[in-house]
Parts: sequence; C-alpha cells; structure tokens
Amino acid sequence: MSPRPSLLSSAIVCPRSIPSLRPAFLLSRVPGSSQSFTGHTSAVHRKPQRHPAYPSSFPRPSPRLSPQPTRTMASQTSHSKKHKVCIVGSGNWGTTIAKVVAENTKENSDIFEEEVQMWVFEENFSFADNSKHAAETKNGPQKLTQLINKLHENVKYLPDIPLPHNIVANPDIADTVKDATILVFNLPHQFIAKVCTQLEGKILPFARGVSCIKGVEVSPDKGCELFSEVIGEKLGIYCGALSGANIATEVALEKYSETTVAYDPPTVDSPTSTSDQKSKTALQPVPKEYPPVDHANMHKLFHRPYFHVRLVSDVAGVSLGGALKNIIALGAGFVDGLGWGDNAKAAVMRVGIMEEVKFGKAFFSTVRTKTFTEESCGVADLITSCAGGRNFRCAKMSVAEGKPISEIEERELNGQKLQGTSTAYEVNAFLKKQGKEKDFPLFTAIYNILEGNKRPQDIPALLYKSNL
Amino acid sequence: MSPRPSLLSSAIVCPRSIPSLRPAFLLSRVPGSSQSFTGHTSAVHRKPQRHPAYPSSFPRPSPRLSPQPTRTMASQTSHSKKHKVCIVGSGNWGTTIAKVVAENTKENSDIFEEEVQMWVFEENFSFADNSKHAAETKNGPQKLTQLINKLHENVKYLPDIPLPHNIVANPDIADTVKDATILVFNLPHQFIAKVCTQLEGKILPFARGVSCIKGVEVSPDKGCELFSEVIGEKLGIYCGALSGANIATEVALEKYSETTVAYDPPTVDSPTSTSDQKSKTALQPVPKEYPPVDHANMHKLFHRPYFHVRLVSDVAGVSLGGALKNIIALGAGFVDGLGWGDNAKAAVMRVGIMEEVKFGKAFFSTVRTKTFTEESCGVADLITSCAGGRNFRCAKMSVAEGKPISEIEERELNGQKLQGTSTAYEVNAFLKKQGKEKDFPLFTAIYNILEGNKRPQDIPALLYKSNL
Repeated sequence: MSPRPSLLSSAIVCPRSIPSLRPAFLLSRVPGSSQSFTGHTSAVHRKPQRHPAYPSSFPRPSPRLSPQPTRTMASQTSHSKKHKVCIVGSGNWGTTIAKVVAENTKENSDIFEEEVQMWVFEENFSFADNSKHAAETKNGPQKLTQLINKLHENVKYLPDIPLPHNIVANPDIADTVKDATILVFNLPHQFIAKVCTQLEGKILPFARGVSCIKGVEVSPDKGCELFSEVIGEKLGIYCGALSGANIATEVALEKYSETTVAYDPPTVDSPTSTSDQKSKTALQPVPKEYPPVDHANMHKLFHRPYFHVRLVSDVAGVSLGGALKNIIALGAGFVDGLGWGDNAKAAVMRVGIMEEVKFGKAFFSTVRTKTFTEESCGVADLITSCAGGRNFRCAKMSVAEGKPISEIEERELNGQKLQGTSTAYEVNAFLKKQGKEKDFPLFTAIYNILEGNKRPQDIPALLYKSNL
Repeated sequence: MSPRPSLLSSAIVCPRSIPSLRPAFLLSRVPGSSQSFTGHTSAVHRKPQRHPAYPSSFPRPSPRLSPQPTRTMASQTSHSKKHKVCIVGSGNWGTTIAKVVAENTKENSDIFEEEVQMWVFEENFSFADNSKHAAETKNGPQKLTQLINKLHENVKYLPDIPLPHNIVANPDIADTVKDATILVFNLPHQFIAKVCTQLEGKILPFARGVSCIKGVEVSPDKGCELFSEVIGEKLGIYCGALSGANIATEVALEKYSETTVAYDPPTVDSPTSTSDQKSKTALQPVPKEYPPVDHANMHKLFHRPYFHVRLVSDVAGVSLGGALKNIIALGAGFVDGLGWGDNAKAAVMRVGIMEEVKFGKAFFSTVRTKTFTEESCGVADLITSCAGGRNFRCAKMSVAEGKPISEIEERELNGQKLQGTSTAYEVNAFLKKQGKEKDFPLFTAIYNILEGNKRPQDIPALLYKSNL
C-alpha cells in the first residue's frame, strides 16, 4: 500500500488532463457535430465564476441529463427568441434561487434573456446604526426594492450576499411576470393561492413554471395536492418542481450542494412525455421560436459549479420527498432523544425512506422509487434534515427533556411552527380516511407519539410489524 | 389540527388491539392452516425478553421475509434433527452476535439446539483491583474462557453485558465447530485464512456459514474477494453474510437497530436459488432431517425485538456496502472539515451510494441496486459511519487542522489503522488495473486527496463530471 503524504501538498488541476469535454449524449449520438461541439466549447471559454471550492481554470463538464435525445439536440439549434425568466418570491430561499438563475441567464445568453425580474413584497426598511449601509436610511426608511436594486443585495432576507446586477427587484407582480416564458415560484406556501389569483390573466398562455416551494397540501377531502399542480391548474400552465438537500444560506454562500429538478415536458412540447396524462388543463405549446423547455435547458438554468442539478421527470416524488422528510426527522429526533445512538437513528431514517416510496406509489401513479432512494430531493434531503434540522432538534429536545414538543416549539422557534408536526397530522388524517394507517407504521407511530397515544420507546415494536 | 398533548401521557399497547398475528405469507397462502397457525401462536406465548424499549406484553409479529413460499412452508414442518449453531470469534462484535444468536436458539428450540459454542482465543486475564469481579483473580490471572463460562460475561471484550447462560466459551476451535450445522464467523478479517486452515476437515460437510466480517479483499491481481466466498471456498460450504448499521455496543445494550442478512440458499438446498451458479465448490445438501436453512429460519436465528433483520439474497452487495462506505465516510469528513455544512456532506453521501451501486454492478453480476439504496447494510450503514465513525472523524480533523490524515490516525487511534484509507488505496489499485478510475470519480477523488494530488476543495469539480 502506498504511503499517505500530507493533504497539504496538492497539485494544480490541468484542463488538458481532462478527457473530451463534449457532453456524453453528443459523443454517443453526433460524433464531430461541429454545431454541438462549438456550442459546448463556447462554454469552456466562458468567464469563470468566483467560487473558492472550484478552480476557475476548470472546464465546464457535461451536464447530467435524463435521456431526451431529440429535444436535447433541438436545444442546440438556434432560435429567434430567448426565454425571459422571472422569480416569484424574494425571501431567503427565493433570493438565493434568483442569484443562481441570474448567474446562469448571464452565462447562457444564447437561450435566456440576461435580466431576471424578481417580485418583492414591498416594505420599508431601515438599517441598524452600526450597519455598513446605515447612511442609506439615515433620512428614514427606504423601500426594500429600491435598496435591493441600488445595493444589489437583499438587505432584509439575504444580507451580505452580493447579487448579480442582472436581478431586478420589482414590487409589481403583474409587471414582474410580463412576457416571462419561465416563472420560478419560491415563496411561503400559504401565499400561493393569493399570488396565483393576482397572476391570472397576467402571464403568457404558453409560460412554463418551476415550483421551489417544499411540501404538498394534504387533506382528507382533497387528498394530496402538489404545489406545482395547484399553481399549474390555477394559471393553466405546466409547472415542474425543484427540491433537494438545500439549506439556503449554504447555497447562497456557494458551498457545494446538489438539487433535483423535476420537469416532465407536456406532450404539447415533447412527444415523449407522459406528464399531461394527468394534467387537468389544456396547455398551449411553447412556440417553436423559443428554445425548448426541456431537461437540457432546465439544467442550464439551475446548474452551477457549486449547485449540482440532476433532472428527473417525477414531479410528485420530488414534491413528496420535501414534505414527508419532516415527519421522519421527528422520528429520528425521538429515538436520538432517548439516547439510543446512531444505529436507531439510521434505522428510523431507512424505514422512513421506504414509507416515502410506499406513500408516493400508493397515491401517485407516476412516482418512481429512485426519486426517494437515489436523488438529492429524497435520501440527501432527509439526511440533511436529520443532521440538525428544526424538526429533528425539537423532537430530540422534547424527549430528552421530557417536555411536550409544542412547549419546545414555542421556546425554540419564537412563534414559528414545526412543519413536521402539522404534516404528521395532515398525513394521518388523510391515511385514516383512506383506511391505510396500518400500511405506514412509522408515520402512524409518529402521529400517535405526538398525540400521546404511544411513547418513543414503542417505535421498534411498532415498526416490527412493518415489512419495509 | 388536533392539539399536541404531552409526550409523557402514554397508553398501554394492548395485544388484543393488534390485528391477525399470523405471518403475511401464511395468511396469503394457507388461510386457516392449523399447523402454521399453531406454530405461530406458540410464539405469542413465548417467554418475553427483557428489553426497555419493547413492552414484554407485545406479541411477536410476523417476520420480514423474502418470498420463498415452498421453503418457508417446509420450515413450519417438524424435523427429526435440530441445527447446532456455533460462533467463530468472541471479540466485541463476535460476543454481541453470540448473545443475539443464543437468545434466539433458546426461543426457537424447535429448530435450534439451545447451546451455542463460542470459540475464544484463549488468554489469561486479571481484573483491576476496583473491579466488582476482583476476587476472581486475586490468586493470579485466570483463563478467559473459564471466566466467561463462570460469570456469563465476556469480561475482556464485552464487559458489563450479561450473556445468556446457553453460550459456552470454548478455547478449542475444532471442538467448538464439532457437529455444528450453522457456523457464524465473526472475527478480525486478518485471521480468516489461519482459522479456515485450522477448520479444514473438522466441520460437517453439509454445514452452512454466515460471515459477520465487514468488508471485502480487493487486490489488482485477485480482484474483489468477498470474505463469505473466501470462507466458503476454503471450507467447501456455502456461506452468507450479515452486515448493517450496527455499532456493536449499542446492539449489546439492546438499543434498537436493524441489520441485513444475505443468504441465497444453494440449489442443492433450494431449487429456486441462483447462488451456486458462481460457487466454485461442489456442495453437499443439508439433510432433510434438519429444518431448512432458508430466509425464514435465518430470520429466527438473528432477529430480535431490538435487532430487526431483513433477508436478501445479494451476498456481494451486502459485503461491498460494509467496505466501500469507509471510503465515502472519508469524503464526507473532508467536505465537513472545510466547513461546507450539511448540504455538501449529504451530496457526497448520495454520490457515494451511487458509486457503490455502480461498483457492485460492474464487478458482480448478482448485485442489486436496492441492496445499497434500501437496506441497512447500504444507506443506513453509510449514515451511521458518516455520523461520527472514525473514518469520518479523522478525515474531518485532518482538513480542519490542516494535518495529514496519517498524523491524525496515529494521534487518535493509538496504533490502529483507518479502514477507509487502506480500502481507498486497494480499490484504486484495482480500478487502475481495470482502467475504470474515471468511472468512479468520488472513489478516485478520495484516493487522489489522500495522495496529495487533489485538494478536498476540488471535490465538487471532480464530481461535476460524474453522471451519478
């Protein structure tokens, strides 16, 4: 076995040492296609991004794509129009995604218009006296949009993160979405209905959407409603979803992470698609003058050297992962609070992934197992949530201190509510109505522990009956 | 939404409230079969085990089985002989498994002889003066086997854990395995060859084995050798494997955990099997006088209320998971040492699982994806290792402190070596010889970081080329 020298001695990554930079699908399908090759090498010579963990000398590698050769090849051809992308929402996560998207529209100006409009719920803002920006509001509070556009920083919701200058904060939602062909929704889920009402009749009929809003709406009456479907049906457009192990601040700081984008182009856009078999609205196709809205271009819109994107078509699975993980994080917190150690925590997480799969397949025909077991939106998001997320932490404290979780919630989250507990109650009410409580022993156990009908110590016995 | 009362108010679990206790496979195949029903209800009335997290009033639920209807039914019929089980090895993990097995042979005395012989490498032992057992060795050191058999405690390797009285410590390896039909191997991998040589000609020709030894032997010349195969071929028997998220001390303390038992009965024992397609030795069938060695009885041998067992047939996958996870844990430690946070750590773990799958499928025809993505031996074992295992911790310290990992290893492990680093070098030498280094960007990145050819900061760029 070789010796193990210091980690400190390191070599420079030499681009020449990297094999063919042409995307795999091009290599395999159109060897030597000058068009696609030019298209790709241009990427190599793009202005490198500032990113500590990513040598600017490093070439742009091949994107990770789901196989869609036809549309992918089409995306390499020239089009008379470009996509106009806007962001609906400007909180911590919304502004972070705006940053990612704006960096990419600038880098891919052959496909996207550089400018990215970002809707901001207008409010007045004053800096603290010790802020480096204090002078900006010395004569009184200023409008948040004006401060964002002047300082290129969301001083209230993402302070100290420089934003690309091609982001334009806009207080007028109708003006924000005007002529936009791709709408990225990233706002608290309780505002979805109101915002969609404001947007009705204001957007292009052939616009496409991506929802970055985690979770699903579960109720005994309506069943499981995906936020992407709620948005799509309200606006009469197709809407995909983005979800992953993405703590917003870490992404904003350009620390390495992955995400999953679920986009299943409707058949009016792609003959190979299956998505609108379940779509309740008649869709208008994206005009041929625009580059296709497909996996290749979705990858160009969201993928960064520090934010790796994988494309899938399972919108339901991606959305469910972001919701159900919060119930599982409570369970992991319960057993950790008992001092049972890492074996027990890992066991609850594994059973939890299997119940996510079972839930998805039971209620959505299009769900695929691997969305939960192999993608960032599934296993990786769960790992992050159980590493120290608020649901995990509060559940652990409640058991360790022998206090009701509601008391911990009040103490730790100053007024905010745990998503895990409400999701656990909603999912249980839904499962009860479906007569399927017993098919989901972990979800049911966590509900019963919250209700005081069972103890965390009962979890092994309750999962004993599970076949997951 | 319902209110959330205290976690402390808890209800008693009432056996009567539990639905049919008959195993699912019996319900579905032989409704009302008095034989199987009797066989099952007898389990309900078994003496309950002491286990803090498991109400003794709770009935024994249906085992989790891979579908093997014929053999499973057979296992319910009466046989003139019982299986004699022995444990080869008596360290921390070996003694823990002996405890699990001995509890089960006592509970399932219709299938197994209660007594479990455990081979102990004989040594003299003296208690510290302040030990509760100090009197035992006041006249000088005593033989470890005698102390174990008198005190029913492995005072050296698993102190303070009471062992079932049906465990018999035996210093004579030939005598330990005499007449044993099931051999459980649980000793440090470096002793396998020597022990197998001592066992040649001493074991029953139709004996079956289970290896609890984590890892595989990887070399450029021999390729990947599973310890279970090394044992099986050396002794001319079939050998399965047990691996999972199993920190020995937590299992010994009866804290909840899961494990995976891989056993693919050879065709001489089960016509449905595929296992000995690759077996290099002609096997003798288990005589019909014995209960079948199948998933149902393997479950009875290892499953406990605190140690949940899932059966699979993918021996190679189960063995690889326990080895490759240590390389991935180094990678997770590297990015965590950079302060990149939970997103980055989860990303490395997710890519790692995918590389485990790719490695398994590249070099073993029988490997199944779900062994890594859905079983305790895969995703759960990786989660535990990356939560605070020695490979993760030392890698993190090496980056955080800017010191070579070899220096941290010496400082932290007093003389012991990290498995992750040696496995990373062995796997890389093997991949180099196969010309497949580039197909495993994470494993290759970690090797190159250990070698000083790359920096932890390069990981995102190096994985950028991955399609996993």
